[in-house]
Amino acid sequence: MALIVQKYGGTSVGSAERIKNVARRVARWKGKGHDVVVVVSAMSGETNRLIALAKEVQGTPDPRELDVALSTGEQVTIALLSMALIDLGVRARSYTGGQVKIMTDSAFTKARIVSIDEARIRADLAHGHVVVVAGFQGVDEAGNITTLGRGGSDTTGVALAAALKADECQIYTDVDGVYTTDPRIVPEARRLSTITFEEMLEMASLGSKVLQIRSVEFAGKYRVKLRVLSSFEEEGEGTLITFEEDDKMEQAIISGIAFNRDEAKITILGVPDRPGIAYQILGPVGDANIDVDMIVQNVGHDGLTDFSFTVHRNDYQKTLDTLKPVIAHIKARGIHGGDKIAKVSAVGVGMRSHAGIASTMFRALAEEGINIEMISTSEIKVSVVIDEKYMELAVRVLHKVFGLDQPAA
Amino acid sequence: MALIVQKYGGTSVGSAERIKNVARRVARWKGKGHDVVVVVSAMSGETNRLIALAKEVQGTPDPRELDVALSTGEQVTIALLSMALIDLGVRARSYTGGQVKIMTDSAFTKARIVSIDEARIRADLAHGHVVVVAGFQGVDEAGNITTLGRGGSDTTGVALAAALKADECQIYTDVDGVYTTDPRIVPEARRLSTITFEEMLEMASLGSKVLQIRSVEFAGKYRVKLRVLSSFEEEGEGTLITFEEDDKMEQAIISGIAFNRDEAKITILGVPDRPGIAYQILGPVGDANIDVDMIVQNVGHDGLTDFSFTVHRNDYQKTLDTLKPVIAHIKARGIHGGDKIAKVSAVGVGMRSHAGIASTMFRALAEEGINIEMISTSEIKVSVVIDEKYMELAVRVLHKVFGLDQPAA
Repeated sequence: MALIVQKYGGTSVGSAERIKNVARRVARWKGKGHDVVVVVSAMSGETNRLIALAKEVQGTPDPRELDVALSTGEQVTIALLSMALIDLGVRARSYTGGQVKIMTDSAFTKARIVSIDEARIRADLAHGHVVVVAGFQGVDEAGNITTLGRGGSDTTGVALAAALKADECQIYTDVDGVYTTDPRIVPEARRLSTITFEEMLEMASLGSKVLQIRSVEFAGKYRVKLRVLSSFEEEGEGTLITFEEDDKMEQAIISGIAFNRDEAKITILGVPDRPGIAYQILGPVGDANIDVDMIVQNVGHDGLTDFSFTVHRNDYQKTLDTLKPVIAHIKARGIHGGDKIAKVSAVGVGMRSHAGIASTMFRALAEEGINIEMISTSEIKVSVVIDEKYMELAVRVLHKVFGLDQPAA
Repeated sequence: MALIVQKYGGTSVGSAERIKNVARRVARWKGKGHDVVVVVSAMSGETNRLIALAKEVQGTPDPRELDVALSTGEQVTIALLSMALIDLGVRARSYTGGQVKIMTDSAFTKARIVSIDEARIRADLAHGHVVVVAGFQGVDEAGNITTLGRGGSDTTGVALAAALKADECQIYTDVDGVYTTDPRIVPEARRLSTITFEEMLEMASLGSKVLQIRSVEFAGKYRVKLRVLSSFEEEGEGTLITFEEDDKMEQAIISGIAFNRDEAKITILGVPDRPGIAYQILGPVGDANIDVDMIVQNVGHDGLTDFSFTVHRNDYQKTLDTLKPVIAHIKARGIHGGDKIAKVSAVGVGMRSHAGIASTMFRALAEEGINIEMISTSEIKVSVVIDEKYMELAVRVLHKVFGLDQPAA
């Protein structure tokens, strides 16, 4: 008998019929003798409906009051799911974030969980109840309702699993796991049976959005066993996100190919190569609230160097405008950039112990005539920036060259 | 400077635009220097939507979970109204029933208020805030969300006014006050500037539904000054419901003519006139969960009497079925009844000190050829049961004969 925390997203609970399906699944787990805590999101569309209503009343809704309104979405779902469970003869009780004492800071609309008082849940579990908890919400020290921001229900699930020392936290979504890459681009893409937290973080932040990134960090920090599963399939193992590299398992060098076409690149040419110059460039960018992703600076020649970085595509023009006066000030030769780029990354903890990943990658791209515009590497990934039009080709080539289309040994 | 509690019903907050209108009205009161606490209902239609959703999931929704779902309706409104107030530059904060500690018993879907901890509201008022509280809901000792039943927002308003010792509790609705009778039947019907609690109770229970009856009882018990006003008119005094007869004011003998066509009458003929016979008849009726309204028994002759009473029209057939075996058992002569009846009542505290009200009433009806089938009187009302087809005529005649169509002196 295990203690399982299950989280169901908005699509999984999007109608009365789907809520009944979730109830049947929960009842099966309960029927096997497990203790089950369920975290649910608002029914799909509900959060957007409430935001629209709020904006009709106040252009920029007051954050405290917006959280009071938004938290009702999950509150309706917990009630409905509990009814569906009771209808199946399963004892069930619902709790809002505030009732179960999910304590957060007071940063309305993007609060962070501070602590969870799990006593009430444990008491209900001991009495044979399934406990249904509203995701996405909590309460601050003064008793104000808070929300955790978009996708915050994942974080609620993981935080509850951590507080309860659950055996597993299952995230039910509309995909059946994490894939080696997007199957829409590479039909041969395979579902990974396991992936490490570090790989998951790189995959998630690079665009393979399955889980909210914060929930993955949270799971890694508190060593919660996290599993991604489909709520629309009866069976299936999904993908287990492990917090350690498992030596016993077949260890692929590369776990997946991630990609992203939301970025634009900026290059400042002929930058005087002296201490503090990077700050002089990126300081104003940060002050303008523009997030920078990759940063590349090569060794200089004759006291000059080129300095490149990427930003979100929406911030491209704003970045150029911000840097125009800076160029003159630091006496750089010029600035250019482009927003028709894509970032493609090979991710895998296996590359730590394998030389030559980068060169394999570069050779494969060269053989297809794909020019690499920027390169950035970390312990477990190699990323390249290329022309946007080659993105799908690059993903397919790299997926093949690293053997990701072969069934796991 | 006064402390005012205002309550706005579902129609008054039925859209973003209407919520903004309510905010402007609240802002005007606040602008005059008053402390204002606002109680709101769910947006019109929202409670029914939630009930329908719940029934889709569970035929008879679990009461605890139904309350968790239903309470979200008011929670959305408090957030939206607070936003609208903040948008007007008015400091405002919303509270759910649980946050403001409206403590109730644990009778889900029909809980009763036990106590209110008004400290938090007082602190906010002292800081110049308008406090917006969700009507219809509370929390029990264990922290479970409860609701007060249909129309419970009126009760929340009155209970808050009592707890805060407010100077006035204003109930905003879609009528501009309490009328001498229904203006749809008598165009000359006048709005009453004042009415006593006792009269209001008689008027409300007799069909002039403006306020939830429980809230009126509550207001009477805690001596809360209650005023009914229209939320769709800019000005207007509405009707003040007073807890004492005001000698200084022009005192009409009759305040209003109430009526009701929801009832059916049952007469048991030739009942042996002996002690305990009323119980033998009404005991089985009560056991069948049928509510009885008027009961009339005349003095008997030759050891026999006729025993009549009225029930809700929906319970008419059930009552006949219930009594069939009883008739035989008590050896009554027979039973008959009818559901094409109406009850018309003259209500007024003034009749206490005036003889002849009943006879004026009976003569006026007789002059129109209206036969009286049953009569029942209390300290402040005289009710007659007549054929349904004469109801409008009877109301108009009585409204005129008691001078209710004349402007108050």
